[in-house]
Amino acid sequence: MDQRPIGVFDSGLGGLTAVRRLRQIMPSEHIIYFGDTSRVPYGNRSSDTILKYARQDLRFLRSFDLKAALIACGTVSSNCLGQLQRENDIPIIGVVEPTVRRALELTENKRVGLIATRASVSSGAYQRLMSQLDEKVEVFSQPCPLFVPLVEEGRFRRGDVVIETVAGEYLQPLREAGVDTLVMGCTHYPLLEDVIGSIMGENVNLIDAGCESAYAIRRHLKHSDALAPEGQKGAAEFYASDRVADFERLAAVFLHEDIGHTAHQIDIETY
Amino acid sequence: MDQRPIGVFDSGLGGLTAVRRLRQIMPSEHIIYFGDTSRVPYGNRSSDTILKYARQDLRFLRSFDLKAALIACGTVSSNCLGQLQRENDIPIIGVVEPTVRRALELTENKRVGLIATRASVSSGAYQRLMSQLDEKVEVFSQPCPLFVPLVEEGRFRRGDVVIETVAGEYLQPLREAGVDTLVMGCTHYPLLEDVIGSIMGENVNLIDAGCESAYAIRRHLKHSDALAPEGQKGAAEFYASDRVADFERLAAVFLHEDIGHTAHQIDIETY
Repeated sequence: MDQRPIGVFDSGLGGLTAVRRLRQIMPSEHIIYFGDTSRVPYGNRSSDTILKYARQDLRFLRSFDLKAALIACGTVSSNCLGQLQRENDIPIIGVVEPTVRRALELTENKRVGLIATRASVSSGAYQRLMSQLDEKVEVFSQPCPLFVPLVEEGRFRRGDVVIETVAGEYLQPLREAGVDTLVMGCTHYPLLEDVIGSIMGENVNLIDAGCESAYAIRRHLKHSDALAPEGQKGAAEFYASDRVADFERLAAVFLHEDIGHTAHQIDIETY
Repeated sequence: MDQRPIGVFDSGLGGLTAVRRLRQIMPSEHIIYFGDTSRVPYGNRSSDTILKYARQDLRFLRSFDLKAALIACGTVSSNCLGQLQRENDIPIIGVVEPTVRRALELTENKRVGLIATRASVSSGAYQRLMSQLDEKVEVFSQPCPLFVPLVEEGRFRRGDVVIETVAGEYLQPLREAGVDTLVMGCTHYPLLEDVIGSIMGENVNLIDAGCESAYAIRRHLKHSDALAPEGQKGAAEFYASDRVADFERLAAVFLHEDIGHTAHQIDIETY
């Protein structure tokens, strides 16, 4: 048993979809969340910049005594997870591997779609791991650079012509490719599940990166006997690098939970 | 006469619309442009973050021996121009004042619209200056947070249902208010001139912040006899804080000029 908290970070608010899942499946765990809202989005940045930001995010989180960290950012997970794992002496879980494994379990026709930020797609991390684990699988990938700003502006509901048009354009090549499984490789995208699902059709499996990585961290902690004692009620703390009023307002959308005025602002560039 | 260059910065590429105008009206001037592409967009950030970034941007530009600087970023201009002017011993021109003066010259019904990023609108800078200069003018303002990502993704043309829907929603309250003049308080927005013009109608004056500030800096340099000698051909240098390939590709759209592979990447956080 291990009472220490689990750290979670993302470039912005998307990682809260992973926190929601963590709190659902491991209600005893204490969670520290950091959203790098002053530097969001990471998805269009170069890999040097992404590594630098990720190191700072992790240094901040490790100012708490963590037992494990979840990188709920597809861009960081696909660009520099290995580097971060080598530099740190606690388990660090990204979103790529759990998501890829789940996709390979579910696909029947071996045609898997990937939607993610431009940086995640061009890192090739999802595609490489999929081919390593199953050389017969074909991956069709599509960067979706407007999904994050649209979601953060609240445009993620069915019936909104803006998100439906953008999603329709992004997803068209994947529909044509006949994928039976679609990896949503960014933790913002679960909010678009209805929109994406209606375009892809009900026979296509949608894989939620935040959700799969939450399960992965639970397996890891269970395996090393490091879960928190059952029955206690874990708390969650929220930190952001820009003003917290917007964070608190939007958090409710991602978490399905009102966090009130409990978020704290920190200066990430001092880490 | 003064041969030293003029520095121009913006959070991203939008400021290139001001550079285009500078090169048009002052072809002899040497221009150094910095686009903070690794930290764009500034528009949704807090004022502390904006000041910190702006100071770094200006410190980088001043590593060249400048005769003047143009802040082609509506967000910085409206949040902390005074502070930057006090800290620097060269003339620093922002986009707010030239734009507001032009709007007041053109409005007949004294109803002026303002579209800009969330931070520019909530700074109140445009609104305050307009009331100071003409207490009878009424300002109707509207933050347009999706305009920058949409323009940067190339969605700025008429006939695109996405930009037309978003623009229609943002502009509807300004149409209802009956403004006869609309300030485009962000240097990305000139690319949307056709879309915005078709929604607002041909009787509404559109004010281009980059263009007005280019004229303002020319007036300033002329007045202090600091223009470059006529007849020479000024050059332009381009710097960005993220990978330059994207910068170079998009620059052509904003500048109407191909800059080839001439842009340089710098690490802005060391300034």
